[in-house]
Amino acid sequence: MRPGEYLTVVLHQTRSPDNLGAVARVMANFGFSRLILSDPATYSFRGAERLAVKGDAVLERMAVAKDLPEALTDCVYAVGTTSRTQLKGRTALTPEEAVRKLAEESQRGRVALVFGGEQRGMSDEELARCTDVLVIPTSDVQPSMNLAQSAAVLLYLCHRQGLVEPAPVAPQEGARLGTLNALAARMREVMLKAEFLNPQAPEHVLNELELTLMRARLTQREAELWLTAFKHLGRAVARGSSV
Amino acid sequence: MRPGEYLTVVLHQTRSPDNLGAVARVMANFGFSRLILSDPATYSFRGAERLAVKGDAVLERMAVAKDLPEALTDCVYAVGTTSRTQLKGRTALTPEEAVRKLAEESQRGRVALVFGGEQRGMSDEELARCTDVLVIPTSDVQPSMNLAQSAAVLLYLCHRQGLVEPAPVAPQEGARLGTLNALAARMREVMLKAEFLNPQAPEHVLNELELTLMRARLTQREAELWLTAFKHLGRAVARGSSV
Repeated sequence: MRPGEYLTVVLHQTRSPDNLGAVARVMANFGFSRLILSDPATYSFRGAERLAVKGDAVLERMAVAKDLPEALTDCVYAVGTTSRTQLKGRTALTPEEAVRKLAEESQRGRVALVFGGEQRGMSDEELARCTDVLVIPTSDVQPSMNLAQSAAVLLYLCHRQGLVEPAPVAPQEGARLGTLNALAARMREVMLKAEFLNPQAPEHVLNELELTLMRARLTQREAELWLTAFKHLGRAVARGSSV
Repeated sequence: MRPGEYLTVVLHQTRSPDNLGAVARVMANFGFSRLILSDPATYSFRGAERLAVKGDAVLERMAVAKDLPEALTDCVYAVGTTSRTQLKGRTALTPEEAVRKLAEESQRGRVALVFGGEQRGMSDEELARCTDVLVIPTSDVQPSMNLAQSAAVLLYLCHRQGLVEPAPVAPQEGARLGTLNALAARMREVMLKAEFLNPQAPEHVLNELELTLMRARLTQREAELWLTAFKHLGRAVARGSSV
């Protein structure tokens, strides 16, 4: 990979061209070039160039994904940012911890830093698409940071951590989130069919299970094994229920 | 001092209300409340409130100074930010070093973080008004950061360093920059009269001398002693030249 491509910046449901431009500029400032818009809240991003100031190379290469799982599909690790300190069943990392993990995980493949929309940030469900969650500690008076300013803080720390070009080590192919999401979808389907999950509220238990697999830092091969296992289970369950 | 008042943020020759608002917001995010505009490039800052988002308390208390020396007059230490890596006779600190020094010096009195204008940043002459200089390391492709984003990076680091409320130690009253500037002005006058400085270009040598005094971290009493000494010298030189 070229320098600056280890880290993908994902903007989820971004609304403001100003913020997009400012994020592109600060990515250029710190040597990062991979930007993905996930389910953008608007497509009229004219005006972003004005604020991008030499970040236009970033904007030109920017990709758009229909949702968060699609945006993260080829990453092995993703950390989502939130200003909420009450998080269901998860412990938020500090920015420094998150950046250290991004650097470690970048040895296994692409990693992503995910920012929520300007108005509501990311829901628990959306954060569950990320391997980890981070909170930038702020004052109680005004806990909510501007999107482009959080990006500045975190990309500065990534730059300091040497994430632009991680030290080369023996590569170990980490499970891509695309595969892990396919696995989660399959698990859901199979476990619903098997009446293990409550059809009214399957997410809670499912997310807990998913998180354990994320924490296990599966290799791609292991994730594919799990996926194949659930395909088989699914067929077996379907056969059982049609008897 | 109340928490958040140890650090003064000085915006020198700021032009954009958007930047002002964004800086006020990020100050509120990280618990800082003292903002001074030095020689602002415009006075029509309507619109700043829109971006300040709960940073209005910061904007309401904001002071305006006619120039940098006036803005820094009651501080014992100031660090100026620049994106220039070629600096006459000075070695730039990294952000982490600068923030460590801000924390140390805040034991002696108020400290300031100074940002230059959007268009030209700060000149060598303006940076000479600051005790130290810092550079945020950036990529060669786009070295120049947006003002509000540099503020986000540095105020985050200040917040992490505990600068909002420094650990109480035996107070040692540091020399205020107002006194140090009065000293520098007096030195200039006396040394010009004494024909020690080149009247065509007195700054270079004078700045070198000033910097040694800044590095010495004078107490207020020591600075006043120096100032009194130069007043006496000035009178003596004037008597000599009128003979």
